[in-house]
Amino acid sequence: MSQPTFARAEAESGFDPASLLADALPAVESALAAARETLRARVAAGARISNAALETEQHAAHCLAWIATYVECLRQMRDWAARLGAAGEFGEMERLILGIGAGEYLAQLRGGLPMSQGEIARLADIGVDAAVLATPAIDRLIKDGNTDAARRRLVDLMIERRGTASFGATGLDEEFEMVRDQFRRFADEKVVPHAHGWHLRDKLIPLEIIEEMAGLGVFGLTIPEEYGGSGMGKTAMCVVSEELSRGYIGVGSLGTRSEIAAELILGGGVEEQKREWLPKIAAAEILPTAVFTEPNTGSDLGGLRTRATKKGEDYLVTGNKTWITHAARADMMTLLARTDSETSDYRGLSMFLAEKPRGTDDDPFPAEGMSGGEIEVLGYRGMKEYEIGFDSFRVKGAALLGGEEGKGFKQLMKTFESARIQTAARAVGVAQCAMELALSYAIERKQFGKPLAAFPRVYGKLAMMAVEIMFARQITYFAAAEKDAARRCDLEAGMAKLLAARVAWANADNGVQIHGGNGFALEYPISRVLCDARILNIFEGAAEIQAQVIARRLIEGN
Amino acid sequence: MSQPTFARAEAESGFDPASLLADALPAVESALAAARETLRARVAAGARISNAALETEQHAAHCLAWIATYVECLRQMRDWAARLGAAGEFGEMERLILGIGAGEYLAQLRGGLPMSQGEIARLADIGVDAAVLATPAIDRLIKDGNTDAARRRLVDLMIERRGTASFGATGLDEEFEMVRDQFRRFADEKVVPHAHGWHLRDKLIPLEIIEEMAGLGVFGLTIPEEYGGSGMGKTAMCVVSEELSRGYIGVGSLGTRSEIAAELILGGGVEEQKREWLPKIAAAEILPTAVFTEPNTGSDLGGLRTRATKKGEDYLVTGNKTWITHAARADMMTLLARTDSETSDYRGLSMFLAEKPRGTDDDPFPAEGMSGGEIEVLGYRGMKEYEIGFDSFRVKGAALLGGEEGKGFKQLMKTFESARIQTAARAVGVAQCAMELALSYAIERKQFGKPLAAFPRVYGKLAMMAVEIMFARQITYFAAAEKDAARRCDLEAGMAKLLAARVAWANADNGVQIHGGNGFALEYPISRVLCDARILNIFEGAAEIQAQVIARRLIEGN
Ligand SMILES: Cc1cc2nc3c(=O)[nH]c(=O)nc-3n(C[C@H](O)[C@H](O)[C@H](O)COP(=O)(O)OP(=O)(O)OC[C@H]3O[C@@H](n4cnc5c(N)ncnc54)[C@H](O)[C@@H]3O)c2cc1C
Ligand SMILES: Cc1cc2nc3c(=O)[nH]c(=O)nc-3n(C[C@H](O)[C@H](O)[C@H](O)COP(=O)(O)OP(=O)(O)OC[C@H]3O[C@@H](n4cnc5c(N)ncnc54)[C@H](O)[C@@H]3O)c2cc1C
Ligand SMILES: CC(C)(COP(=O)(O)OP(=O)(O)OC[C@H]1O[C@@H](n2cnc3c(N)ncnc32)[C@H](O)[C@@H]1OP(=O)(O)O)[C@@H](O)C(=O)NCCC(=O)NCCS
Ligand SMILES: CC(C)(COP(=O)(O)OP(=O)(O)OC[C@H]1O[C@@H](n2cnc3c(N)ncnc32)[C@H](O)[C@@H]1OP(=O)(O)O)[C@@H](O)C(=O)NCCC(=O)NCCS
Repeated sequence: MSQPTFARAEAESGFDPASLLADALPAVESALAAARETLRARVAAGARISNAALETEQHAAHCLAWIATYVECLRQMRDWAARLGAAGEFGEMERLILGIGAGEYLAQLRGGLPMSQGEIARLADIGVDAAVLATPAIDRLIKDGNTDAARRRLVDLMIERRGTASFGATGLDEEFEMVRDQFRRFADEKVVPHAHGWHLRDKLIPLEIIEEMAGLGVFGLTIPEEYGGSGMGKTAMCVVSEELSRGYIGVGSLGTRSEIAAELILGGGVEEQKREWLPKIAAAEILPTAVFTEPNTGSDLGGLRTRATKKGEDYLVTGNKTWITHAARADMMTLLARTDSETSDYRGLSMFLAEKPRGTDDDPFPAEGMSGGEIEVLGYRGMKEYEIGFDSFRVKGAALLGGEEGKGFKQLMKTFESARIQTAARAVGVAQCAMELALSYAIERKQFGKPLAAFPRVYGKLAMMAVEIMFARQITYFAAAEKDAARRCDLEAGMAKLLAARVAWANADNGVQIHGGNGFALEYPISRVLCDARILNIFEGAAEIQAQVIARRLIEGN
Repeated sequence: MSQPTFARAEAESGFDPASLLADALPAVESALAAARETLRARVAAGARISNAALETEQHAAHCLAWIATYVECLRQMRDWAARLGAAGEFGEMERLILGIGAGEYLAQLRGGLPMSQGEIARLADIGVDAAVLATPAIDRLIKDGNTDAARRRLVDLMIERRGTASFGATGLDEEFEMVRDQFRRFADEKVVPHAHGWHLRDKLIPLEIIEEMAGLGVFGLTIPEEYGGSGMGKTAMCVVSEELSRGYIGVGSLGTRSEIAAELILGGGVEEQKREWLPKIAAAEILPTAVFTEPNTGSDLGGLRTRATKKGEDYLVTGNKTWITHAARADMMTLLARTDSETSDYRGLSMFLAEKPRGTDDDPFPAEGMSGGEIEVLGYRGMKEYEIGFDSFRVKGAALLGGEEGKGFKQLMKTFESARIQTAARAVGVAQCAMELALSYAIERKQFGKPLAAFPRVYGKLAMMAVEIMFARQITYFAAAEKDAARRCDLEAGMAKLLAARVAWANADNGVQIHGGNGFALEYPISRVLCDARILNIFEGAAEIQAQVIARRLIEGN
C-alpha cells in the first residue's frame, strides 16, 4: 500500500544509495587508514609488532578490527550493487537494503558500533576524529538511508515475497541459486519438521539424514573430483551451509568436521593420506571429529598439552581434550597434540588423522586408552559434545599429517580459514531462520487490532534483520572467493565470522522479542534458535579472538 | 598495582566527573526538551495526543523514551554523587563508576544508544542535532571518562573487594544495607547452592524456602503494620528483591505476585478485603497468582475477553488465560475479567480476588470450571507457568475488588508501577549475579599465561557491568522513592524497568562470553542466568510497551 507513495518520494528526492555509497567510501577508507596508522605507530617495535603493546592497546585494536569489518562490508555492498546494477537486477528491494544498511553502518561508524552488548567501538577510541566522516555523501546516506519509511517499505516487500529464499538478490550466479533451492527444499522437507524435536529431546541427528546429505554431495562438495568429491569452491559450501543451517544449525554443522578434515588433508597431507581419506570423507563413509581444545587451552590453542610420544612406529597419546563435537559417532579424529615435549608453544604441535571406533550412547568411546563423557549444552545439539581423556591411546605413525612433526598448528590455522568461512555461512543461515520465524509470527499475531508487523518497532527489527543478513552474506562470499583464490584470508574469514555471528545473535534475540512471551516457551522454535545462535560468538575462535586476528593482520598488512 | 599511577594521573589531570556531570546536564536536558517538543508537535491533535500519529512516530517516540531514560539516569547519578560526596563517601570506586558511566552514556546520547541489538536510538531520529551536546563538560566526560585505564583500575578494585555486596556505595541509609546483608546471607546460604539444580530439574522452589522467607518478612514487607506487614517502603522491597534475585530470579520473584495482590488490595480494596487478605498474604499463608494475560491479549491487556458474568450474588468466569506464573500452587487469583460485555476496551474490566484450591503436579487445578497445563520455558523456572481455561468458574461476589465493576484496569495500572519497580530490582539482582559469576571466572581462568581479567576486552566488559548495575540501581531507587511519595510514576517505573532489563540481559550475555565454551554448558550457572535474564525484556510489559508508556507520559507531561 505504501508502495506508490514511497517509490515516488524516493524517485523525486533522487536518493541513489548505490552511487552515494561509492562516493562515500573514500572518506571512510581514509578514516580507516588513519586509524590503522595511528595504532600501528602505537604498537610498533621496530619493523615488528610488539605483542605486549598490542595487548595493552587491545581495546583500540579490536575497535579497529570492527571498524575495518564494517568498511569491508560497505565495499562489498558497493560492489554487489554495481554487479546487480550492471545485470539489471538492482531492484527496489535491493535499493532499500543498501540504503538502510549503508545509512545505518555509516551512522554507526560515525557514532559508535556495538562490538557486543555493552562494548561500543568508536573511531575516537583509536584517536581518530569521526568528523572526518562528515562528507555530503555520508551525510545524505545517514539522513535518507535508514528511515522509518524505508524500513516499512522493505518489510511490505518482504511480506509480499514471503517464502522466497533470500530477500534481495544474492548476486551469485544462477548455478548457486539452483544449489540453494535444492538445499532449501531438502531442509524444508527433511529437517525443519524434526529439528525442534531433536533439540528438545537432545538426540543425535539420525544417520539417515547424514546419508541423504551424502547422497546430495554435501560432504564432498569442496573435495576435488579426483578424490571423490565434486570439486566446487567455497562459495558453494557457503550456500549449502546457509540453507542447511537455516533448517537447523545441527544439520548445517554436520559437514564442518568433514570440511576441516578434508582441508587439513588437502593442504597438508601426503598423497597416500589424500587417497585413503578423502573419498571416504566425501561419501560420509567416515565421519571425522575435530580434537583440538583442552580443558586448560581454548583460545590459546598453541599452548596445548596433550602429548603424542613416539613409541616405535606409532605414537602414544596422553592428555585431556574437551568440547569435542560429534566425537562418539565419529570414525576418525583430526587430533592436535604436542610431539615435541621441549616446547610449550605452537611450534611443537603435530596433527594426526587418528582412527577411532564408532561409539554408542552407552559406550561412547569403545577404544583402549580413550574415555569420556557428554557435556550437556544450551543449544547446538544434534551431534553432542564430549570431553575425552587419552591415556596412552595408540595412533599409527602413518597418521601423522604430512608425515612431518611440528607443522600441526599452521596446518590448522590455514584450515580454520575455511572453517570460519563455513561458520559465517552457518551464522547467516541461523540469522535467516530467526528472521523467517519472526516475520511469520509478526504477520500472524495481532495486538491492538493489527498484525505486529504493522508497528514501527516490529517492522524496524525485521528490516534490520534482512539488511544485516545481506551484509553478512556478502562479506562471507567475499571471504570464500579469497579462499578459492588461494590467498591467505584469515583476515577476511575472521571478518565474516565476526560479523555474521553478531548478526545471527541479534536476529535471534530480536526474533524472540517479536514473539513476546511465546519466544520464551520451549514449544516455539525461536526459543531454540536463541540458544543455537549463542554459540556462534564462542566457538571456531571467540569474537575477541577473531578481532585479535583481524587487528594483527591489519597492522601487519599494508 | 596500577593504583598509584592511575590515581596520580587522575588527580593531576583534575578530572572530576561529579562536577563535570553537573555542568554537563543542562545541555543534555535542553536537548531532551527540544526532542520532546519536536515530537509533541508532530503527534499533537489539539490539546490531546493523536494515537494514530503517535503510532506513526513510534520509532521517534521510543527513541525519546530511551534518551529520556538515559537523562534521568544521569540526573540520578549526579544526585547520588552529590549525596555521597556530602557524606564523605565518594571514593575512588564511586568516581570511576561515575566517570565511566557518564562518559559512556553521554557518548551514546551523542552517537547513538542501543534500544536493542540492532535498534539504535539517536537524537537525529527525533530531528535534534546531536551537535547541541558539544559542550566542554560533555566533551571532557566523553574523552576522559570511559577510558581503558579507568576500566582497568575499576576492575582492579573490584577484584580487591570481591565478595562485597555492591561495587560502589549504593547511597542508601545504613538500615537498608543491613537488610541487604541479611538477604544476601540468606541467598548465599539457602538459595545459591540449590538454584541451579532447581532450574535444571525444572522443579518448584521448595515450600520451606517460602516459609523461611515469610519468617524474614519478605511477603509483608510493604504491607502496613496494621495489616500484619512491616510497613516498609518500596526501597526496602527493591533491596530485598535485588538480593534474592542475585541468588536466583525464581526466589526473587516469589514475592512479585504477593506484591501485586497487596498493592491491588491496598489501592482498590474495601476495608473488609484488606482485613481478610493482607495479613494472610504477609504471612505467606496464602500465595497469590496474577491472572491477566490471555492467548490473544498480552501487550494489549485492555482488550482481554475472559468474561465474568453476574449470576445471583456471584460471578461465573469463562475464558482462557495464559502465562500464569505459580498458578498451580497458588491459593488466590488476582483475576482481571470483563464484566461489561458491551465493551471491548479497558473500561469494561474488573478485578477479582478469587479463591482457588492449591494444586499438585498431577492435578494442577483441582477446581470446578478450571483446567490447565504447564508451559515449559527457557528460564525463570521455579514457580512454573500455566495456561488456564475457565468454564463457568464460580467467583464470589464479595471477591470483586473495591466492590465496584469497571475499575479493574486502572487499579492494575497503578499496581503495575510497583510491580515494574520490583521487576527492575529483580533485573539489577540478575545483572549482579551475572557480574559476580563472570568476575570469579575471569579471575580463575587463565589463557595465554594470564587470568582472563587481565585482558582489556575482558576487564572492559566487567567494568561496564558494574557501572550499568549502579546506573540501573539508582534509577530504580528513584522510581521507588516516587512511588513511596504516592506520585503516579508509570514514567519512572517504566524507565527503571526498561533500563534494568537491558542491563541484566547485556550482563548475562557478556557473562557467558567471558566464560567462553563453558558459558554454553548447562553445568555452569551462567548458562542459566542467560536464560533467566531474557525474560526481563518481555514480561511485566515488554520493552516496547515500556517505551510506549514512557513516551506517552513525556509528551503528555510538561
Ligand atoms: C558447543 C561447542 C562446540 C565446540 N566444538 C569443538 C570441537 O569440535 N573441537 C574443538 O577442538 N573445540 C571445540 N569447541 C571449543 C571452542 O573452540 C572453544 O570453546 C573456543 O575456542 C574458546 O575457548 P574457551 O572455551 O577455552 O574460552 P577461553 O579461551 O577461556 O576464553 C574465554 C573468554 O575470554 C576471552 N579471551 C581469551 N583470551 C583472550 C585474550 N587474549 N584477549 C581478550 N579476550 C580473551 C575469549 O574471547 C572468551 O570470551 C567447541 C566449543 C563449544 C562451546
Ligand atoms: C515467563 C513468563 C511469565 C509471565 N507471567 C505472567 C503472569 O504471572 N501473569 C500474567 O498475567 N501474565 C504473565 N506473563 C505474560 C506477559 O506479561 C506477556 O507475555 C507480555 O505482557 C507480552 O505479551 P505477549 O506475550 O502477548 O506479547 P505481544 O503482546 O504479542 O507482543 C509481541 C511483541 O510485539 C511487541 N508489540 C506489541 N504491541 C506493540 C505495539 N503496539 N507497538 C510496538 N510493538 C508492539 C511487543 O513489545 C513484543 O515485542 C508472563 C509471560 C512470561 C513469558
Ligand atoms: C589465538 C590464535 C589466533 C593465534 O595464536 P598464537 O599462538 O598467538 O599464534 P600466532 O598468531 O603467532 O601464529 C603462529 C604462527 O602461525 C602462523 N599463522 C597463523 N595463522 C595463519 C594462517 N591463517 N595461515 C598461515 N599461517 C598462519 C603465523 O603467521 C605464525 O607464524 P610465524 O611464527 O612463523 O610468524 C589461535 O590460537 C587461535 O585461532 N585460537 C582460537 C582457537 C580456535 O579457533 N579453536 C576452535 C577449535 S574448533
Ligand atoms: C499498553 C498499556 C500500557 C496501555 O494500554 P491502553 O489500552 O492504551 O491504555 P491507556 O494508556 O490509554 O490507559 C487507559 C487508562 O488508564 C489510565 N492509566 C494508565 N496507567 C495509569 C497509571 N499508572 N495510573 C493511573 N492511571 C493510569 C490512563 O490514564 C487511561 O485513563 P483515561 O482513559 O481515563 O485517560 C497496557 O495495556 C499495558 O501495560 N500492557 C502491558 C501488559 C502487562 O504489563 N502485562 C503484564 C502481566 S503480568
